[in-house]
Amino acid sequence: MVSKPQLKLIRSLSQKKQRQKHGLFIVEGIKGINEFLESHYELHHLYATTQDFNVSGSSFTEISSAELKAISHLETPQEGLAIFKIPSQTEAFQYSKNVALDSVRDPGNLGTIIRMCDWFGIERLVCSSDTVDCYNPKVVQATMGSLSRVKVDYVDLVDFCKTIKNAVYGTFMDGESIYAKPLSKEFTLVLGNEANGISQEVETVCTERISIPQFGNQKNTESLNVATAAAISLAEFARQSIET
Amino acid sequence: MVSKPQLKLIRSLSQKKQRQKHGLFIVEGIKGINEFLESHYELHHLYATTQDFNVSGSSFTEISSAELKAISHLETPQEGLAIFKIPSQTEAFQYSKNVALDSVRDPGNLGTIIRMCDWFGIERLVCSSDTVDCYNPKVVQATMGSLSRVKVDYVDLVDFCKTIKNAVYGTFMDGESIYAKPLSKEFTLVLGNEANGISQEVETVCTERISIPQFGNQKNTESLNVATAAAISLAEFARQSIET
Repeated sequence: MVSKPQLKLIRSLSQKKQRQKHGLFIVEGIKGINEFLESHYELHHLYATTQDFNVSGSSFTEISSAELKAISHLETPQEGLAIFKIPSQTEAFQYSKNVALDSVRDPGNLGTIIRMCDWFGIERLVCSSDTVDCYNPKVVQATMGSLSRVKVDYVDLVDFCKTIKNAVYGTFMDGESIYAKPLSKEFTLVLGNEANGISQEVETVCTERISIPQFGNQKNTESLNVATAAAISLAEFARQSIET
Repeated sequence: MVSKPQLKLIRSLSQKKQRQKHGLFIVEGIKGINEFLESHYELHHLYATTQDFNVSGSSFTEISSAELKAISHLETPQEGLAIFKIPSQTEAFQYSKNVALDSVRDPGNLGTIIRMCDWFGIERLVCSSDTVDCYNPKVVQATMGSLSRVKVDYVDLVDFCKTIKNAVYGTFMDGESIYAKPLSKEFTLVLGNEANGISQEVETVCTERISIPQFGNQKNTESLNVATAAAISLAEFARQSIET
């Protein structure tokens, strides 16, 4: 049974303001919930139609499929909805591999980038404060559980880039080809907004300018999607790191 | 002024069945519309709030912003909505670079893959008949005009793979690393469904099995998003083609 105050809280967590006020966010589906349960994230409450999760006592409420449908943000609810606590920001120490996002707005793009950061062993994702919230339900869903393993911090990107010691690679249309340029094993890779790319302020703190060469005969393709550019760049950093 | 029958037609084109019945699909936004106007696609009708498009006569109707809002599929309508004719399928002749999709369901994934095919000079995208329709408004929007330049055909994938002469590379979790394996300049790259990968039937007609190596320490990341896998694979085919 989901009480009225609980229902109100769950619904409110689709809004960033309410997530920040309560310090809570939602994860749906067995696979995703289990990955967060196994991670450093702290469970607030789990609502599920099965008792298959390794959670008991006061943090667990068994509910009906109809109740799950009423609280779910998904079109097809998946056995459970969990509320986890938003962790505090990572303290400012150096990581050897960072990805930095300058004003990425699309939840699907952020989710996909978090998922690939997990695949490529990126230790931390830093985001400008106007990048979409990583605890947005659409982002959480798109990460397929990877958000439980990749640290995501919201920072002033210019200040961040100034403090880190390794090379800061900005992706630009007119940068050096990633296939011609030797790439460091320790790096920060900066990716920009979907429509406008990297902002002028952040551009000034990039120490290297890189680019993905275009292979088509057509010169009309304006650019690659930001998640596509992130994937190709991260793969090339990884490839060079095993070759050298 | 948009007449009632026109309004009914435009609204109906959000459904695949109606698009196929009428042989028409919708493109929105100045940039996208202009790219289709410059391509081999044939215009059926253009509705726009400006006369800036290079279209006149019986194929053009100037409308108000309120009218555009009423017919648009977008949350923020963008100056114009055009109806184009769906071209006939490409005749079955050989292309040297193909991408083949086996049951890709997400419109955003298909749109992103069409956009990167354009970037990487892929001549044709072939899709299994249960892959999402490339004339779905969400797909058209996500391609950012690239659909006007990449041929997309819906085929029986098994039959298609049997008839083509160059190597058919299937992407699998247990394939050979794309960084260890020499990749052909002429190829067909097969990518599978978001949840289940390549089907057993299509697997039997893949002549090569490739894989993107995982670089993270975590072994929990299940897989990469299909558009991410497509991007990394196509970039590696392109990189090897310039190196050799």
